[in-house]
Amino acid sequence: MISVVKGGLTAVPGFRATGVRTGIKHRGLDFFLLASEKGSVPSAGLFTSNKVKGAPIQVTQKNLEDQKLGAIVANSGCANAYTGKTGLKNAEKMTKLTARALDMDPDDVGVASTGLIGTQLPMDLIQEGVDKALETLSNTWEAGENAAKALMTTDTMVKEIAVETDLEDGTKVTIGGAAKGAGMIHPDLQATMLAFITTDAYITPAGLKSALKKSVDQSFNMVSIDRDTSPNDMVIALANGLANNERITRKHPSKKFQEGLDKVTTELAKKIAKDGEGAKHFIRVRVEGAKNLENARLAARAVAGSNLVKAAVFGNDPNWGRIVTALGYSGASFKPEKVSISVRSEGKEAPVVLDGEGLPGESLNQASKIMDSDEIEIYIKLDSGKGAATAWGCDLTKEYVEINSKYST
Amino acid sequence: MISVVKGGLTAVPGFRATGVRTGIKHRGLDFFLLASEKGSVPSAGLFTSNKVKGAPIQVTQKNLEDQKLGAIVANSGCANAYTGKTGLKNAEKMTKLTARALDMDPDDVGVASTGLIGTQLPMDLIQEGVDKALETLSNTWEAGENAAKALMTTDTMVKEIAVETDLEDGTKVTIGGAAKGAGMIHPDLQATMLAFITTDAYITPAGLKSALKKSVDQSFNMVSIDRDTSPNDMVIALANGLANNERITRKHPSKKFQEGLDKVTTELAKKIAKDGEGAKHFIRVRVEGAKNLENARLAARAVAGSNLVKAAVFGNDPNWGRIVTALGYSGASFKPEKVSISVRSEGKEAPVVLDGEGLPGESLNQASKIMDSDEIEIYIKLDSGKGAATAWGCDLTKEYVEINSKYST
Repeated sequence: MISVVKGGLTAVPGFRATGVRTGIKHRGLDFFLLASEKGSVPSAGLFTSNKVKGAPIQVTQKNLEDQKLGAIVANSGCANAYTGKTGLKNAEKMTKLTARALDMDPDDVGVASTGLIGTQLPMDLIQEGVDKALETLSNTWEAGENAAKALMTTDTMVKEIAVETDLEDGTKVTIGGAAKGAGMIHPDLQATMLAFITTDAYITPAGLKSALKKSVDQSFNMVSIDRDTSPNDMVIALANGLANNERITRKHPSKKFQEGLDKVTTELAKKIAKDGEGAKHFIRVRVEGAKNLENARLAARAVAGSNLVKAAVFGNDPNWGRIVTALGYSGASFKPEKVSISVRSEGKEAPVVLDGEGLPGESLNQASKIMDSDEIEIYIKLDSGKGAATAWGCDLTKEYVEINSKYST
Repeated sequence: MISVVKGGLTAVPGFRATGVRTGIKHRGLDFFLLASEKGSVPSAGLFTSNKVKGAPIQVTQKNLEDQKLGAIVANSGCANAYTGKTGLKNAEKMTKLTARALDMDPDDVGVASTGLIGTQLPMDLIQEGVDKALETLSNTWEAGENAAKALMTTDTMVKEIAVETDLEDGTKVTIGGAAKGAGMIHPDLQATMLAFITTDAYITPAGLKSALKKSVDQSFNMVSIDRDTSPNDMVIALANGLANNERITRKHPSKKFQEGLDKVTTELAKKIAKDGEGAKHFIRVRVEGAKNLENARLAARAVAGSNLVKAAVFGNDPNWGRIVTALGYSGASFKPEKVSISVRSEGKEAPVVLDGEGLPGESLNQASKIMDSDEIEIYIKLDSGKGAATAWGCDLTKEYVEINSKYST
C-alpha cells in the first residue's frame, strides 16, 4: 500500500533542504541545497548519455565513485556546460564551498546546474547562495518546496512528491523526490533530466543503483518533450537508512521499495511531461500486446516523440495515420494489419483504428471531441505478444516555437 | 562539366510525361504519368525503411524485381497506405489501367501515391486520370513541369531539374528529375521521399542501383524536415540508353555520370528542404573534420534535425549551445574542446564557437544579423579527421504547427 504524503525531499526523516535567490536567474529562486543530517549516506546516480557532458556531471560522477553523498548543491539560470577548465574548477569550487559550510568532505557533495549552455557561473553569487542556504536549511515541507522551485527554468509548476510504503518486513519507509524539466527533454537510456530522490530506507549502494536504474527506465526515460537530449541530465538518490528496515541489497531487492520508488519517479516524469514547454495537452501513450517490453517501449516512445503526432494532438486531430507511421519507424516489430488504436480522456474512449482498419469520419469526429481535453491517452493494441509500456509527452504548439525562438543574448 | 538545362523529367530524350487534374486532391494537378518511348528500360529503386509500407511501395518493389520499368503512374491527395487488401488491389489496378493505355505489361509500370494515409483511392478518378494523361503525354518541358506539379501535396514550389554532362568517353548524357516533399520528411538510410529520375545513359540495372544508392545517401537521406519517416518514400531511376555511351556497370562505374546524378539528387533534396512545411529559413549544415564520412553524416543530420536548433534559427538566435548538444547526442565521436562553429549567409560569416569556447555577445549579435536571411549555413569544424558531410533542413515555425494541427476529416 503506497500512500502519497505531503511534501517532497524533506518529507523523508533526516533530510533538510532549501531554495534561495541569488540573482543567477533573472527572477525567482535559483539556488538549491539538499543535506543529509547523518552526513554521507549510500547514494546512486544516473547521468546523461550525451557526449558533451556539463562540468557538474563530471564532478558528481567522480564524487559518486565511493557510492556515497551527504549533500547536493544545484543552481538554475546557468548550466555550466561547455565551459572548459574554468567551468570544471567552478563546479569543484561549488562542492568545496558547500562542504565547508556543512562541515563535510567536498567528495561527499554532488553538484548540478541547469540553464543556459556556455556561460560561466558567477562564483560570488554561488558563495552568496551557500551562505543564504545555510541559514534557511530546514526539514519543513516549505523548505523542500523551495528547493524544488530553485531547480525551475522555463518550468511553470513545481515538481515534487513523497510517498510512504510498508516494506515486506513491516517497516514503513518514505521516499521523496524533486525534479525539473521543460525543454531539451529526451532522456537517453542510462540517463535522465535533473531529479533528486531521498529515502530513509536501509539499502546498499548497489541495491539502490539497481532499483534506480529499473525505475528510471520506465519513468524518466519514457518522457519526450522534443527529442533533444541535454548534456546535463542527472538523477541522484540518497538513502540514509533511518527506517532501520531489513537491509535491501541488489541480490535481495524489495519489491515494495521498488514500487514506492517507481511511484515517485513516474509521478515526477508525468509532471515533467505535463509541464513541457508550451504544452496544451498532456499525452499518455499506452502500448499493449507488443512482442516484448523493449518493443513496447520503442513503440510508445516513438509515438509520444513524433512532431506530427504532437502537432495533430494540438489541433484535436485523431490523425491515426501519423500514429501508425511512428509505429512503423519505431523499430518495434508488429503486424500492421493487427493494430487497434483508440483515444481516451475523462473516462471516455473512441476507437480510430480497429484490427488494422481506419474507422470512418463519425468515429474520428467523436475522437476529436474526446481529444479536446487537457489530458489524453493514445491507446495502442498490437497483437504480437505481452509487452506493455507507457510513455508520456505533450503536444507541439506554437508556444513551444515561441519560447524556443527568442534570441536572448 | 555539368550544365543545368531547362526542364526536368522530359529534358531527357525518349521520355514523355504529363500531369493532369482528376479531383482526388481538392485542387490542382493530382495525377502523374511518366512513360519511356522505348518501353521498359533498366531501372532501379530505393524504398522506405518504415515497417508500415504503403500499397504502392509493395507493388512497385515487386514490379522492379526484373530491374526494368517502362512507366510510372502516381497520384497526390491519397497515399493509399494502411488500406489493406483493397488498397493493394487498387495499386495493382492502377498499373493495369496504365499498362493497357500504354500497351505495356503491368509488371513494367511503377506506381506511387502521396497524401492522406488510410483512405482508399477513388478508382473512377484514377481511370479518368489515365485517360486524360494518355491524351496529354508529351516530351515538352511544360509536360514535365505539369508532371512534377501533380506530385505536390503541401509543397509550395515545383521540384524538378535536368543536367547535361559529358562522360569519360565523350558522350553527352542527360539526367532529369522531379520530386515532392514538404512534411513527414526524414528519409531513412536505404530510403527516400517521392523522387523520379530519368536518363538516357547506357547503364546496367546493377550499375544504376549502385550509383543511385550512393547518390541518395548524400542527398535525400541528408534532409530532415520533422524526423518523421513516411511509409511511402520511394526514389526510382529509369535509364533508356539512348545516349549510346560506353556501357556503365557496377564494376565499371562512371565518375562523370555519378557527378551528374549527384547534382540532380542534391538539387532536388535542397528544393525539398527549402519547401519544408512552414519554413522561413533554409538551413544548410556543413560538417568538416569528422572522424570519417559516417560520423560527419551523423553529426550534420542531428543538427539539421534538432527541434531546438530549428526553433532557434526561426528566431535568428545563434544558440550554439543547442548545436553542441545535438552534436553530443548524434552518435558521432569528437572532442568537444576542439569544436568550432560559425554561421554564414550571403557571403558573410560570424564565428560563434572557436576551438571549444563560446564567443562573447558582440559575436553573437553579429551572427544573429547574418541569420536574418532566407538561407543560412551552420558550419561546424570538428578536429578528429577528414570526414565531411552536408545536411539540409529548415526552421521550426509556428506555421509548421499550424499546418499540421488542422483537423481535416
